[in-house]
This record gives sequence, structure tokens and C-alpha cells, in this order.
Amino acid sequence: METFLNRQTIYNGRILKLELDQVKCDNGVIAYREIIRHSGGAGILCISEDQKVLLIKQFRYAYNEEIYEIPAGKLEKGEDPLDSAKREFEEETGHIAEEIKYLTTIYPTCGYTDEKIYLYLVTKFKVSKPHFDEDEMIESVWIDFKDVLDMIHKGTIKDAKTICAIQSYLLMRNCE
Amino acid sequence: METFLNRQTIYNGRILKLELDQVKCDNGVIAYREIIRHSGGAGILCISEDQKVLLIKQFRYAYNEEIYEIPAGKLEKGEDPLDSAKREFEEETGHIAEEIKYLTTIYPTCGYTDEKIYLYLVTKFKVSKPHFDEDEMIESVWIDFKDVLDMIHKGTIKDAKTICAIQSYLLMRNCE
Repeated sequence: METFLNRQTIYNGRILKLELDQVKCDNGVIAYREIIRHSGGAGILCISEDQKVLLIKQFRYAYNEEIYEIPAGKLEKGEDPLDSAKREFEEETGHIAEEIKYLTTIYPTCGYTDEKIYLYLVTKFKVSKPHFDEDEMIESVWIDFKDVLDMIHKGTIKDAKTICAIQSYLLMRNCE
Repeated sequence: METFLNRQTIYNGRILKLELDQVKCDNGVIAYREIIRHSGGAGILCISEDQKVLLIKQFRYAYNEEIYEIPAGKLEKGEDPLDSAKREFEEETGHIAEEIKYLTTIYPTCGYTDEKIYLYLVTKFKVSKPHFDEDEMIESVWIDFKDVLDMIHKGTIKDAKTICAIQSYLLMRNCE
């Protein structure tokens, strides 16, 4: 345990809040924790009947590269993760989930953010039209499941939520 | 692509730096990106001959809970990820890697951080003594590989780098 002593809010932005907390550890040591407060995210692993996975290819400024990911987005304030998952799925890929199942929740990087990413599986959907934000440029691609595994193996897919969603799906399938 | 226009450094701390960048998207839209700059991390999946995994149990302030993770830590400035992996492995668990193999690199949450986590596999090691920081309280546990899979399946293991390391190891093993 670490007991909260004091807080300094450094920044309160559109995506994240940064807080500097002073805490007392169980052994009495006083420490500081730089913590990103984030509303959480929701991601959708969509797999078609013929075992293709719907990924998006998106330029990510932080890494200065285009990366492959499952469709996902940030929870709006107070939004239910399931609603967020459906909304982001439609906005980013133009697909509407007809059957959606909870997979798991992950902690992306537990040292400095409180973000939780809620992961869902969609196997039934209908096709509509994407309508992403004006500062997003997103390309949807269908990739064979075995090729997705190969892309993870080779490091072409690096995004943690995408890898975790696949791992979670495989474990679920093995248990059914 | 997004072209850098302007930067405001909001905070420069011990663990992370927060920058607010103004960028120009390919479609001409001007946007702002809140980006955490982080030196990166290194994690070690250690599996014993009898198929047990060495995990640590650590209180994580951001989530206000104890979580299971592979041993891992932050890269020192300019440090090689492999050196960091060996160092953190010894500091956190008191084990010294005798054979270490690169697994993969993951991007934990690509919307707002540039952190890369480098993952390694250790299957040969010798036992020494842990010596973690005074504000860290870390417990090492050996868990059967099949139980680790079960813990991921049930959501007891939520840490993304841990799940990704397991996924990467399984894919590597299947390809050998």
C-alpha cells in the first residue's frame, strides 16, 4: 500500500491529466508518483466468419509511424465501456456490431497511468460508413487471422491492446 | 503523417516528460497532441525448466492495487534495453540471467505515450539477492505456466507487457 499525502495537478488537458502525488510507502518512505489520469479506452477485436481480423492502420504522432491496431478509442466522461466500444467501432471502421462479447480488461503500462482498456470481441456485424474525427486518418484492413499471428511474431504488430486482444481470444477459444 | 509545428513542454519529471505539440495533419487540419515522452522500459519473461514463470507482485499506485507482472523497469538515459532488462531482473527478483533472448517490442498505449517496452526471455539463470529501490515493495512468485494462462484468461493478470510477453513466447515456441 501507499498512502496519499498530497497532490499537485500539473496539467488538465483534452486527453489526459497529469498529477504529482506525494505518498507514504508501507515502510515509511515518502515518495512522489507522477500519474497520468485517463478516462480509459475500449477496443474491438472483430473477426469475420472466414477468420479475417479487422485492423486499422493509423499514423500515431507519439511514435511518428503508422501502426496496426484493433479499432479503439477513449471513453467519454462517464461513458460505459461497451457503448464506447460500439461507438468507436462504427466511427473508425464503419461497421456496426451485431454481437459483442466482453473479452478482458488490460492495464497498458502500470507505472504511470491509470488507463484501463476494455476489450471486446465482435463476430457479427453489418457494414455502414466510417465517420472519424477530422484530425484522424484511418484506413481499415482485413487480415487473415494466421497472418495477424505472424505479424505479432515478427513485430509488425506492436500495439499492446491488439496483441492482448488476440491472446485473450485464443485463450477463450481454447476453453470453449 | 502529421507535421510538427510548435511545442510547449508542460512538465519534465523523474519518470516522464509531458509535451503539448501543435501539428498539421495531411488534410491541412491543425491539431494538438498531448504526448508523454518516456525513456522506454524492459521486461523479462523468465521460465524455469519445469515450466514455471517468475512473476512479481507489486502495489501500483496508479491503480491502487497489487498487480502481477513480469519483472521490468525503466531504461536509464542512454541505456541499452538488454542491459536494462538484466539489471531490472536482478534488482527486482534477485536472479541473474545466464541466457537471455530478445522476444519483441511493444507499444503499450499508442495514443499519448512514446514508451517502447522491450521484452526478453530468460530460461537459464542463477539465484542471487534482490535489491530494489527503497520506495518499491516487490514480492517474487513462481507460477505454473498453465496457471499463468488461466490468470490471463480470467483477468487476474491485467498487465499488458506480461500478456504480450506470454503471447510472443507462445508464438516463438510454435515456430521453433
